[in-house]
Amino acid sequence: MQLFWGSKEGGEKIILEGEEVTHLNKSLRKKAGDLIHVIDGSGSVFNCEILQMTRSEAVAQILEEKRTEKKWSGTLHIGIALTKNIDRIEWFVEKAVEMGIDRISFLNCSRSVKTKIRMDRIHRIVQSSMKQSLNCYLPVVQDNVYFDNIVVNSDPNNIRLIPNCEEMEKLSLNKLIQSDRDTLILIGPEGDISPEEISLALSNGFLAASMGDTRLRTETAGMMAVAVFQSNNWGGNKH
Amino acid sequence: MQLFWGSKEGGEKIILEGEEVTHLNKSLRKKAGDLIHVIDGSGSVFNCEILQMTRSEAVAQILEEKRTEKKWSGTLHIGIALTKNIDRIEWFVEKAVEMGIDRISFLNCSRSVKTKIRMDRIHRIVQSSMKQSLNCYLPVVQDNVYFDNIVVNSDPNNIRLIPNCEEMEKLSLNKLIQSDRDTLILIGPEGDISPEEISLALSNGFLAASMGDTRLRTETAGMMAVAVFQSNNWGGNKH
Repeated sequence: MQLFWGSKEGGEKIILEGEEVTHLNKSLRKKAGDLIHVIDGSGSVFNCEILQMTRSEAVAQILEEKRTEKKWSGTLHIGIALTKNIDRIEWFVEKAVEMGIDRISFLNCSRSVKTKIRMDRIHRIVQSSMKQSLNCYLPVVQDNVYFDNIVVNSDPNNIRLIPNCEEMEKLSLNKLIQSDRDTLILIGPEGDISPEEISLALSNGFLAASMGDTRLRTETAGMMAVAVFQSNNWGGNKH
Repeated sequence: MQLFWGSKEGGEKIILEGEEVTHLNKSLRKKAGDLIHVIDGSGSVFNCEILQMTRSEAVAQILEEKRTEKKWSGTLHIGIALTKNIDRIEWFVEKAVEMGIDRISFLNCSRSVKTKIRMDRIHRIVQSSMKQSLNCYLPVVQDNVYFDNIVVNSDPNNIRLIPNCEEMEKLSLNKLIQSDRDTLILIGPEGDISPEEISLALSNGFLAASMGDTRLRTETAGMMAVAVFQSNNWGGNKH
């Protein structure tokens, strides 16, 4: 199934813009009267008929709205520092959304080398990955979230983990993650989270987590955390 | 610790070439007499002294050889089809080596859209990821491995898994992986492994595995398989 991204306008219409329209026009040669499947991030797939299309905009009539179920239980929120090479964090966003994530916060840590990111590019990557993976629920992405703020304002009822490279008592991230539980995992920048930041997190109830002995890049650690969370949700159908 | 890549020559010397020498020369301004750490894929880290250096080659004297332990138990072999966009499979190689893998076979499947890949680029990516992650054991990478051959020649004593999108009895990949066991996982191309190929694998003792309900790209499925295998190895230090 091929999905397009649109915005609901009024009760019965959906507007498609930008690359979506270029793709409909140029690659697929769609025209008024053709049927398409559209998502808007609300969790629904809309079966639509194209009413009119210009070079920059298409208007589609909603024929049917199908609600989808979220594909995993519990919510996953990853706070992650930006990488010096911004391609790497963009790649993390693509993979995280494809595997399944509810919220991404780009962290501003004491050792962050970068704090600015083009959110318009991030939003396009998020939409594209949702269409690829058939996830119809738009994750929240927030930039420039101060490390101290996310720690202090986090919900004590959630599983809150801080993988890091300092020497201290740690349990495997794998064993700390539980299906069905809302989870927040914080991933530091290339120079790691500072000892002061780790102390703040631990004193606020975060648990130190181990992700093995390999030296992982920021985006790789983030991606592994998503993979491990999601693999806890994999059911199979054989008992 | 910063690692360089070199080849052992005779008993006591290591030769560094290409980008390694450029990096030593231009970025680090190293010269004869300076000390560096070199790996050659054998599992050792060599503490060396630079003896002489031109623009294209450096010769270093081995002062000490330190054996390292492999960071995970059991071996992981992933067979994976090439992606149409070759950047994606190169990215898989980077991440798989960073997380930890023993062998990669690029599969030639009945639905493969691409079967050729520049192995010189792959070898450079492998070396670079090893240096990043401090993994000193060179994984084997082989191209153009026919799907039928890898299935028929696989070792029945290994855990052999075939994640796929067909409707059939499956257990979660997460539950099928066991620490300490040698493991082979086959990941199909964008159009999935064909039903005939799946049958061949199952009749040869492979187990069908589930990786959740999300539509994953080839490289994402491969990367998740590595993440799940490795997370089974994470110990933590708190009992």
